[in-house]
Amino acid sequence: MQLIEAGQIIGSHEQTPADPAFAQGTAHTQGQYRPIDEGVVPIQDMGFIHADAAYDVVSASAGYLFRMQEHLDRFNASCEKFHLENPYTDEETVEILTNLVKLAGLRDAYIWWAVTRGKMLGERGSMEFENRFYAFVTPYLFIMNDEQRRNGANLIISQDYRRIPPDSVDPTAKNFHWMDMKLSVFEAAGRGGDWSVLTDGEGLLTESPGCNIFLIHDGVVKTPATDCLEGITRQTVLELATDLGLETVVGDVYASELESCDEAFLTSTAGAIMPASHVNGAALAPHAGPGELTTQLHNLYWERRWDGWHGEAIDYSTPVAGFELAHPA
Amino acid sequence: MQLIEAGQIIGSHEQTPADPAFAQGTAHTQGQYRPIDEGVVPIQDMGFIHADAAYDVVSASAGYLFRMQEHLDRFNASCEKFHLENPYTDEETVEILTNLVKLAGLRDAYIWWAVTRGKMLGERGSMEFENRFYAFVTPYLFIMNDEQRRNGANLIISQDYRRIPPDSVDPTAKNFHWMDMKLSVFEAAGRGGDWSVLTDGEGLLTESPGCNIFLIHDGVVKTPATDCLEGITRQTVLELATDLGLETVVGDVYASELESCDEAFLTSTAGAIMPASHVNGAALAPHAGPGELTTQLHNLYWERRWDGWHGEAIDYSTPVAGFELAHPA
Repeated sequence: MQLIEAGQIIGSHEQTPADPAFAQGTAHTQGQYRPIDEGVVPIQDMGFIHADAAYDVVSASAGYLFRMQEHLDRFNASCEKFHLENPYTDEETVEILTNLVKLAGLRDAYIWWAVTRGKMLGERGSMEFENRFYAFVTPYLFIMNDEQRRNGANLIISQDYRRIPPDSVDPTAKNFHWMDMKLSVFEAAGRGGDWSVLTDGEGLLTESPGCNIFLIHDGVVKTPATDCLEGITRQTVLELATDLGLETVVGDVYASELESCDEAFLTSTAGAIMPASHVNGAALAPHAGPGELTTQLHNLYWERRWDGWHGEAIDYSTPVAGFELAHPA
Repeated sequence: MQLIEAGQIIGSHEQTPADPAFAQGTAHTQGQYRPIDEGVVPIQDMGFIHADAAYDVVSASAGYLFRMQEHLDRFNASCEKFHLENPYTDEETVEILTNLVKLAGLRDAYIWWAVTRGKMLGERGSMEFENRFYAFVTPYLFIMNDEQRRNGANLIISQDYRRIPPDSVDPTAKNFHWMDMKLSVFEAAGRGGDWSVLTDGEGLLTESPGCNIFLIHDGVVKTPATDCLEGITRQTVLELATDLGLETVVGDVYASELESCDEAFLTSTAGAIMPASHVNGAALAPHAGPGELTTQLHNLYWERRWDGWHGEAIDYSTPVAGFELAHPA
């Protein structure tokens, strides 16, 4: 079985922005729809200077939003864990996100939104803030580049950085605290790798920058239970694996298991299922590219996405108030 | 001895902005000087979405920049630890920061600057970025409000959050990863306190949100050696304590020591020396306000600052190119 290629995944290749200025993407900041290059955050916003924010990312594929309610539920849980309040209701949030996709004229989109602590009200020492909403949409993107996706990535298990522990910042609340992950990618590049995987500092795998980590060994699909984001794509893969008759285990996964497994892959909204070919520079036996079961999961994922599975069709025929139609009906 | 009051610390109370639009402060973003409310960060900047940045804060008091070279050295070290490169030289950086102070017309100023990972160049998976510089200046501010400063703060040792460990994100590189600290302040407020102190999860004190923690017991001044920012005000207090003939210890400090000490205080560029009156709700014996030695250190700090100690006089008589004089000569 061949891996469906990135070019096919971005199905229609078609983009009809409501305005040429929206071709690179769209943003919603300060309560306004804007071209993405004009989407800005005030420099004193606590979301910038103190990473004081919660965010989420959902995708659209072939004109369908994927598992929107689950993303919203997770986002609301993230906000609650961080004492943040979205100034918009769930309905308004979905409307803004949908409008951003429509204005950009995208069938396949990467959709990001956040609520930040925002601006301090009153004097220092005050606990009162005006929380703020930010969002942007770009053409659908993959964490990995095309070659890495096609041939599989060389994953490096970080030795220099451990994932920020849950009793410092709860990783189930999607947050801006990425420095450990970013620096581990520099480490991976320095060791000839493509991407990194972080442990808890005691040999247990946690997650990969922006991704969950999976391995397959003797037909069993495994992913870490704790110290990681509860990814929606991760959940989706567990369902797909079950549909393929594979056993799944969500539990402790040791770094040593990743080094000796049959197949491995990363999952993320930005790229869905991204195969690994190597771990710490050593090829995963017996293949040197994407594994057989990984390819099956990957292709099944995209076939279902194009069918609108867990999807909510975006109505491109209704214009966004104040703008021309992006996709003429 | 009476604590010098906040009103006196902001010595001149005088502010002559180059333009009324600069009265709230100034910013330098996208290579331009702007009123602070127009200082903005593009929404996709990695400094925002991934807290992928290093920053520093210096203060001006009575028209003198304080220990500017040491702040620059620390900032450059932070950038190096995070593989960031300041697009400006040290000289240009100081010129921009000085100009921001002059445009705001401030003698007493809070001066913040950062370099972010910025914008990704090329496709995903690329490690190439255009690092970006951001800065802003506001009137000098204190982390604590006036009442907390006057009467001393009730410090709560966090039970719910441990400080992000150094093998996740190096705290000696000044960074945006504040969520553990922010949430511990919510915890402190919920427990009737004013501000929090975080441990390493194993009983050792680390730091306080935006501050270093000090205690004094039997005339010995102690502050944690590791798992914290190497604060410039912390270093200054160690020097002042030595000048006052006090013994200083930079080493392991247990949470239990803070609960049973004679005096305690926080240090930060934003507020300098901020006294504690209580720890976990219990008054520090034998006083219920700022301690005697804390008050001596506090007042000595400000007397020296006003004298230009470790200071670099800002030349307000030369206008910033393109703007009128803020402080007419």
